[in-house]
Amino acid sequence: MTLPAVLDFVGVSVFAVSGALAAGRKQLDLLGVVVLALVTAIGGGTIRDVLLDRNPIFWLANGSYILVIAASALLTVAYARWRRPPRSALLVADALGLALFSITGAQIAERTGLPPVSCVVLGTITGSAGGIVRDVLSAEIPLVLKRGNLYATAAIAGTATYVALEGLSVPRPIPSFAGMAVIAGVRLAAILWGLQLPVFELDSSAEKR
Amino acid sequence: MTLPAVLDFVGVSVFAVSGALAAGRKQLDLLGVVVLALVTAIGGGTIRDVLLDRNPIFWLANGSYILVIAASALLTVAYARWRRPPRSALLVADALGLALFSITGAQIAERTGLPPVSCVVLGTITGSAGGIVRDVLSAEIPLVLKRGNLYATAAIAGTATYVALEGLSVPRPIPSFAGMAVIAGVRLAAILWGLQLPVFELDSSAEKR
Amino acid sequence: MTLPAVLDFVGVSVFAVSGALAAGRKQLDLLGVVVLALVTAIGGGTIRDVLLDRNPIFWLANGSYILVIAASALLTVAYARWRRPPRSALLVADALGLALFSITGAQIAERTGLPPVSCVVLGTITGSAGGIVRDVLSAEIPLVLKRGNLYATAAIAGTATYVALEGLSVPRPIPSFAGMAVIAGVRLAAILWGLQLPVFELDSSAEKR
Repeated sequence: MTLPAVLDFVGVSVFAVSGALAAGRKQLDLLGVVVLALVTAIGGGTIRDVLLDRNPIFWLANGSYILVIAASALLTVAYARWRRPPRSALLVADALGLALFSITGAQIAERTGLPPVSCVVLGTITGSAGGIVRDVLSAEIPLVLKRGNLYATAAIAGTATYVALEGLSVPRPIPSFAGMAVIAGVRLAAILWGLQLPVFELDSSAEKR
Repeated sequence: MTLPAVLDFVGVSVFAVSGALAAGRKQLDLLGVVVLALVTAIGGGTIRDVLLDRNPIFWLANGSYILVIAASALLTVAYARWRRPPRSALLVADALGLALFSITGAQIAERTGLPPVSCVVLGTITGSAGGIVRDVLSAEIPLVLKRGNLYATAAIAGTATYVALEGLSVPRPIPSFAGMAVIAGVRLAAILWGLQLPVFELDSSAEKR
Repeated sequence: MTLPAVLDFVGVSVFAVSGALAAGRKQLDLLGVVVLALVTAIGGGTIRDVLLDRNPIFWLANGSYILVIAASALLTVAYARWRRPPRSALLVADALGLALFSITGAQIAERTGLPPVSCVVLGTITGSAGGIVRDVLSAEIPLVLKRGNLYATAAIAGTATYVALEGLSVPRPIPSFAGMAVIAGVRLAAILWGLQLPVFELDSSAEKR
């Protein structure tokens, strides 16, 4: 198996865990849990493949993805019945999924010969789309839009790091791992220490003047 | 016309009725009703065609789909002005659309040579995506996620039945009709008798231990 | 540059402004503003290209779109810090984006040889999808569904005008500009004077009988 294929499987598993944990907060039934895990796990890669017109979509031709996702979701449920997962488990699983999918999205875009800025945007979409679909279906405001969590920021910083190091011909797989480290690091720093970017607040910024 | 084409038209009509009824609860204007009916009716099949890279998308090349949908939506409005549709009409129309679209999605996936588990997932997506888009646009929590209605369960059970009977070489069109009967039966049983699967409730299951 | 390409850039800019203004009401951080602007600006054209299987997607091969969008979003933020944008700025930017994207969507569909009714629907989807994604991600009920704003109505009326004038062989670019004028005119009339279509209200219409 190639590195992107392995990362796809790992990314799919951690997003499945994050989908199952989100489902647990919504009190879905067991198949509902599997469905939310599936949508979360295949959402980003599916949008990547559709936008790049890659055919077939990664999980359609190879049934293993769906089985890995269903197994990850059910193991999450089984674990949660035995021991309470910490509140932070959803955020950590989501951060790892974001890191893995953003970089694989940027890798595939780069290999297609797209310009650097498109690689950054496509990587960010690949990484965040699954979580966005999970949050929209759970009727939550998407994490990516919640203030002060550096979600899109992390994905953009990490994929830009990856694209820059590749452009400098840094030997592989250093650019990939550096990019993932930036993404996971920025996200976890935002979660742990409350780092944030300046906020664009339309009404109050206007009232100050 | 082939059986899948006929089923596409019937599925599109019942989903158009369900979209129009949902629009009536949101007090949209007449074209808003047609738009919500359209999105509901073409959502699932469009996602199916995009994922399978089928070209052109089923409703683009053949203008009849859109005319059938608009007519179904306006007839629903006209009927509702004359006589109040029962509360259950939306749920029944939705159950029939789910049955028809899930099975045609699984059929087309199977004919493309995809593995059985992908046929089940693609069929379930085809069946439920239109209703999910309808609910997301209406700012409702999607039916597919609401606890205890066996929505995804019905689609998965029915498409699995279809795939299994096809695998056993049961003569057509028995597998299709058996699959649709399972889907509509499970959904209607859940609506009528409140059948449900075990629920994964993250916080309270943890508190019990 | 061809006319559709120029219109794509203008449409992308005004939708970026509308996305940035919507982000300001949600108090996102600076990159969140750029992300919401991006999604709003590329949403409609991306769905158009995916449905028509156009390859590559318009913004992927040409990095300028993303740079134009990011610049438009940041200029909107800078302007808003200096002077308060009027409440109507979001609605006007959105109306112009709707007009531009609906007509380019219909143009491209027509050149693909699709039937007139499909051109109208594809144009309407192209025009409204970006704003719908913006509103869904901002956890707002989409403008397109809010009663009495003639949103879908405007897009349908304008693309139908375009298709009809093209069918009558009216010399170009008259059909395009006439279609855009109808869309922007109907939307702005609805905003200014509260024009609206009859409403389909399921429960109260039933209670009257």
